[in-house]
Amino acid sequence: MNTHIILLSGGSGKRLWPLSNNIRSKQFLSVLPCDSNGRESMLQRVYHQLRTEFPTEQVVIATGEAQKEQIEAQLGDQVAIVCEPDRRDTFPAIALSSTYIADICHGNPQDIVVVLPVDPYAEQHYFSVVRRMSAVAARPHVDLVLMGIHPTNPSSRFGYMVPKEHQEGFFTIERFVEKPQSEEARRLIEQGACWNGGVFAFRLGYLMEIVQSHIGEYSFPELLDRYASLGKKSFDYAVVEQAAKVAMVPYDGVWRDLGTWDALVQEMGSSGLGLQYLSQTEHTVVVNELTIPIVALGTKNIVVAASADGILVSDIALSGHVKPLVDPLTDSPRSIHYVWGRRTVVDRIMEESTLKSEVRIVEVSAQSVWEAHEEAGTCTQIVLLSGSGFLLTEGEELCIGAGYSTSLSRGKPLIIRSSTPMRFVETVVVKK
Amino acid sequence: MNTHIILLSGGSGKRLWPLSNNIRSKQFLSVLPCDSNGRESMLQRVYHQLRTEFPTEQVVIATGEAQKEQIEAQLGDQVAIVCEPDRRDTFPAIALSSTYIADICHGNPQDIVVVLPVDPYAEQHYFSVVRRMSAVAARPHVDLVLMGIHPTNPSSRFGYMVPKEHQEGFFTIERFVEKPQSEEARRLIEQGACWNGGVFAFRLGYLMEIVQSHIGEYSFPELLDRYASLGKKSFDYAVVEQAAKVAMVPYDGVWRDLGTWDALVQEMGSSGLGLQYLSQTEHTVVVNELTIPIVALGTKNIVVAASADGILVSDIALSGHVKPLVDPLTDSPRSIHYVWGRRTVVDRIMEESTLKSEVRIVEVSAQSVWEAHEEAGTCTQIVLLSGSGFLLTEGEELCIGAGYSTSLSRGKPLIIRSSTPMRFVETVVVKK
Repeated sequence: MNTHIILLSGGSGKRLWPLSNNIRSKQFLSVLPCDSNGRESMLQRVYHQLRTEFPTEQVVIATGEAQKEQIEAQLGDQVAIVCEPDRRDTFPAIALSSTYIADICHGNPQDIVVVLPVDPYAEQHYFSVVRRMSAVAARPHVDLVLMGIHPTNPSSRFGYMVPKEHQEGFFTIERFVEKPQSEEARRLIEQGACWNGGVFAFRLGYLMEIVQSHIGEYSFPELLDRYASLGKKSFDYAVVEQAAKVAMVPYDGVWRDLGTWDALVQEMGSSGLGLQYLSQTEHTVVVNELTIPIVALGTKNIVVAASADGILVSDIALSGHVKPLVDPLTDSPRSIHYVWGRRTVVDRIMEESTLKSEVRIVEVSAQSVWEAHEEAGTCTQIVLLSGSGFLLTEGEELCIGAGYSTSLSRGKPLIIRSSTPMRFVETVVVKK
Repeated sequence: MNTHIILLSGGSGKRLWPLSNNIRSKQFLSVLPCDSNGRESMLQRVYHQLRTEFPTEQVVIATGEAQKEQIEAQLGDQVAIVCEPDRRDTFPAIALSSTYIADICHGNPQDIVVVLPVDPYAEQHYFSVVRRMSAVAARPHVDLVLMGIHPTNPSSRFGYMVPKEHQEGFFTIERFVEKPQSEEARRLIEQGACWNGGVFAFRLGYLMEIVQSHIGEYSFPELLDRYASLGKKSFDYAVVEQAAKVAMVPYDGVWRDLGTWDALVQEMGSSGLGLQYLSQTEHTVVVNELTIPIVALGTKNIVVAASADGILVSDIALSGHVKPLVDPLTDSPRSIHYVWGRRTVVDRIMEESTLKSEVRIVEVSAQSVWEAHEEAGTCTQIVLLSGSGFLLTEGEELCIGAGYSTSLSRGKPLIIRSSTPMRFVETVVVKK
């Protein structure tokens, strides 16, 4: 009996604007202090914590196409990624990854599957609870195991689970209450209720039966093809609420959503990130992705965050309100991470929401391959600013260095393999 | 008898960083609200106020080479500019401009010269006091007329002038006290003392005699040639303190140095400048020269200023302390204004304080001429992003539009005449 792990990496949004945006989700921001005196992203932190508890188990990351490259860039290409061709809520996403495990990884019906979200900031103990959940899921009289988080306040943001009986290492559940008002939440907490942490464990065969009854019996490639036509359904609705034999394993420890600046700066430490000079400040955190300095003078309880997309200056306590403010900013993201490096827009001309020109700084990591394609109806020029590598043309390799420039021609991609890290300027002008 | 006016435009520095820098002085920042519902710079404001009082008089602007283009860009090329070949303090600067008036403008020894600094923020009445000073300077028993500013506090930053007798329209002066301690300043104010406002009026012949005795008798071109060898001497020391018959004309009105952010934001109005979104803020002023938005949320008493050189977030009351913080930032300014437009560095690579590459956005105003020169040891590429104009080559004019690109060749400047406003990207890579 094997254990398989499905890590759900979804979400996108502007709660951590200007660092997060429609393409770059919070889990990819390299802002958390880590052992090596550097910084890691929430994704990297959760993956390493997971691997400490489950060093050899199969891990599948369920995500959308937009995040695939960023996950590979942060975790390497050894991790299995199942890309949802469309956003279809948690039940189809878990069904697709479970089908991948059953069909492509030849998972056994008795194998255990653990599903967990990528974004909680938790201590290592959380993952030993996940391990315990997988053991409970293997028991004969259990269909589904959920993690119960000990509530720290009567929040209305979570689902609550009221325990019935204590069995060996788990509880049975009396009932679920979805997002209660805080008065009811207070009563539920007095009855020993826990938050539903969105971590699930079950036998693969159990889920595949539900998948077959809801969706049908398909191979992984077949399900991929049909995916866009599936209805949106949450895992809670399709599976949890229908399950007869549900167990809960409680977790009592640090469990935070670092999805807003006030929560994130708590975990970042006082030092901030990037080029900055602080003087006479109190409780001021600067996160600077730009190459120009930020100077903070005499500020108190302020977070300053700057990226190619914009600059936020916010009172820390109020920084949870940034989303509605920046939602109307419909400009497409200016800084995008790829497997091969990063592309940052430094100048953009729009005319009535149509792009007229863009100047981009392209950073290619060492030993990587960058393909530049001319977009239809544009002329594109590139100039190599620093680094060296090879231009791959028909059958030939041309060694290129700083100062090399060329223009792209229609239909022919420019393929460059870097030796050292390379930095280009790429200028795209839309033809009239 | 004519009146000539010398406007002193000096100074540079980082008190208004990141908007001001070693090249762009505070008087060039277009931040003050003006009648036309737009913004004007301190230079433009003072020049217009001056012209309201002195519509036809000769105005000479005394400045350094670094500011010449910016003055022309803001006032047009109708204004006479006397460029000091070197910084040599106020006496040589006023001597040079007076020689220009005597030699090039054929000024008469009986003509009146008024000298005033470009940076005080004052009401129009200030300039009618200047007019009164020029009338007093024409009287037989007066050598030198100074403006006395009514003190608003016992400041130690100014020179004080203690009045002796009230004559018709002016005072004679008993004594000067340079930057007294505030206790003494308080006593001086009780005696009716005024601040020395740095505005002077005198007969041209009077000053030229002093110039001849201190420096020698030279034509304007000869003095220009010798200028760098002159000793540094202040006008106060060389002229004011030696003058026998000194008069003071008092001014009682708004008189401010907008040389720090706290003083400047008072006059800017609450609205700030540039792309910005404010929410739940109190007394927060955002000045944004970048093309990306600044979002301020819940901040109080904060000034945020952003340019291509950096970002300042400061408590308004403490913003006078910015200079020592940014003085160590020795990066050369990234945004420079010229007669023909503006050049902004958007990407710069340095290696041990040697420039390796720069990507610049060049904005050329309509109907202007931009000459691009290849700097020695570099390769330079330009791409036209928007606008249209003509490329002037040997005897020919080539019409160019968005998407046009070329590389500069050594020794041959690229001369472009814009029809509409043009925007280029200019990439300079230093050869190994």
